[in-house]
Amino acid sequence: MSDVFVGIDLGGTFIKVGCFDSQLKLLAKVSAPTEVQKSAEAVIDNITRAAERCVSEAGFTMADVPAVGLGCPGPARYSEGIIEAATNFPSFRNVPVRRMLSDRLGGKTIVFENDANVACFGEFAAGAGKDVDDMVFFTLGTGIGGGIVNKGKLLAGVGDNAAELGHIIIYPDGRLCNCGQRGCIEAYSSATNTAKRATEAVEKGQPSSLKKVLDEKGEITCKDVYDHLKTGDKLAKQITDETAKALALVCINMLHTTEPKRIVFAGGMIAAGDILLNRIRDYFNEHIWKLQKETVEICFATLGEDAGIIGAAALAKKAAE
Amino acid sequence: MSDVFVGIDLGGTFIKVGCFDSQLKLLAKVSAPTEVQKSAEAVIDNITRAAERCVSEAGFTMADVPAVGLGCPGPARYSEGIIEAATNFPSFRNVPVRRMLSDRLGGKTIVFENDANVACFGEFAAGAGKDVDDMVFFTLGTGIGGGIVNKGKLLAGVGDNAAELGHIIIYPDGRLCNCGQRGCIEAYSSATNTAKRATEAVEKGQPSSLKKVLDEKGEITCKDVYDHLKTGDKLAKQITDETAKALALVCINMLHTTEPKRIVFAGGMIAAGDILLNRIRDYFNEHIWKLQKETVEICFATLGEDAGIIGAAALAKKAAE
Repeated sequence: MSDVFVGIDLGGTFIKVGCFDSQLKLLAKVSAPTEVQKSAEAVIDNITRAAERCVSEAGFTMADVPAVGLGCPGPARYSEGIIEAATNFPSFRNVPVRRMLSDRLGGKTIVFENDANVACFGEFAAGAGKDVDDMVFFTLGTGIGGGIVNKGKLLAGVGDNAAELGHIIIYPDGRLCNCGQRGCIEAYSSATNTAKRATEAVEKGQPSSLKKVLDEKGEITCKDVYDHLKTGDKLAKQITDETAKALALVCINMLHTTEPKRIVFAGGMIAAGDILLNRIRDYFNEHIWKLQKETVEICFATLGEDAGIIGAAALAKKAAE
Repeated sequence: MSDVFVGIDLGGTFIKVGCFDSQLKLLAKVSAPTEVQKSAEAVIDNITRAAERCVSEAGFTMADVPAVGLGCPGPARYSEGIIEAATNFPSFRNVPVRRMLSDRLGGKTIVFENDANVACFGEFAAGAGKDVDDMVFFTLGTGIGGGIVNKGKLLAGVGDNAAELGHIIIYPDGRLCNCGQRGCIEAYSSATNTAKRATEAVEKGQPSSLKKVLDEKGEITCKDVYDHLKTGDKLAKQITDETAKALALVCINMLHTTEPKRIVFAGGMIAAGDILLNRIRDYFNEHIWKLQKETVEICFATLGEDAGIIGAAALAKKAAE
């Protein structure tokens, strides 16, 4: 059988498309500008052209594609296939993305999902979770996205907002999150907030080699924190410890909720490497209950930026089964 | 069709059995001493006799029973049907409860589940959650038990410990829980810990009408706290507020995890009534994100102590479908 599957990662700047065989092996990859400043029609046309080009580059035609997966950042009414209003797509107002793309692709089945869920499913189908049935996924970027796979399926709730794991409250009445809550894990352990906590500490006068970075560049990034951690800066260590501890606590809470076999962290921040991963594991072991020995595995994602297109293709494949 | 279903709630003191028709209407109810001080064989015999008597009182025979549900407190290896070692059953050592009961009942299908999961499924099938597909359940007693129903099914993880919701950490490095963790919701909002926090405050000299209770009875119960709340005691209000706030925070965390339609609280503590329920709802509204209006419903259970036998029968019915 020569079925191929298309996975699309729709971002605010680029549309990334991958064409995969039924083993989720990448056959071709295409990237194109989203052109969000144009109309929704124009953006959907861009997606359509990128998808068609990708399938063609893989040596197939759309007739060989049983289904297409499309991931995009929220908020969106995924189950209805509609982007009502989204920060990344300012010109979109109640755009029936799923139907529009399906129409342009000759009535093709389109699976439409939240980007973090899609990346989670990618890691589950072909990455860090490919040998387990139950996993939890966190992507540590500007914010923190999440996904839950339970018995081989993405967990869905009553609406389109299950697994908004970045907004689990870890420190009640703690740091203010962009969502309006206080103490969310995102307000501590996202790449952005890890950097922000370092900046705040330096600005408050805490001694650190990061002060020079702030003075020279006007900002401290998450990468700076890990670079200075490696050269032994005390503040960088404190900031990393706080990031790791909050992540460990949320791992414990997920273990007591959906009881996964594996918890996978993704996103730019995992470039910090073992120094971060080991701190998360240490805090987990320190804070977990003593009733029984837990065997949940905490690890980093393996697919990198392709998780989105792989996950979208994997969801398309599942839908076509 | 005249199928009937048997639900068994195995406790450390009593075995409760209910016989239900296929609409989960109670036909007969039997209670018998567990006699935990005797051997595991004797306990299983007691369960068998109670089940047979209950079916007979309902006017049926075991031949009319497609399956039996059995709930008991953890820890147990539910998926394997084994009680390895449990506080409530000191004479049990690696007892294959499910197989032994099945053997005595002529090879009957036995569904074996954690008691909190069973009560959760009871409320879902016939109580406070009967009109929804997705709910989360907390039972507030000596400890806090939990259950999650997702798309009409009890959520299970990789082992037998999904939905151990009492051990979600709400206050990192907070009060020590029996499980060995710090800051578990159970360490704040169980009936036992609500009473304990009141006792500690009185012992520390905080002024309260509860001091007289402690002096006279030597202890403060959770009921005392709510009685004194109703007569305007400030400490009782503070303790209740802390209980309610921690429960509200865990509701927010569950909304961001499995996104239920309804969150149901059960257990002796709900006798406190609307004064507690309204405080939980108030704190929820105060602390929930502002990204969108949430419509999750927070309410109290409706089945009382029968939730266990109803839930066990409902699980048996589901297994027989």
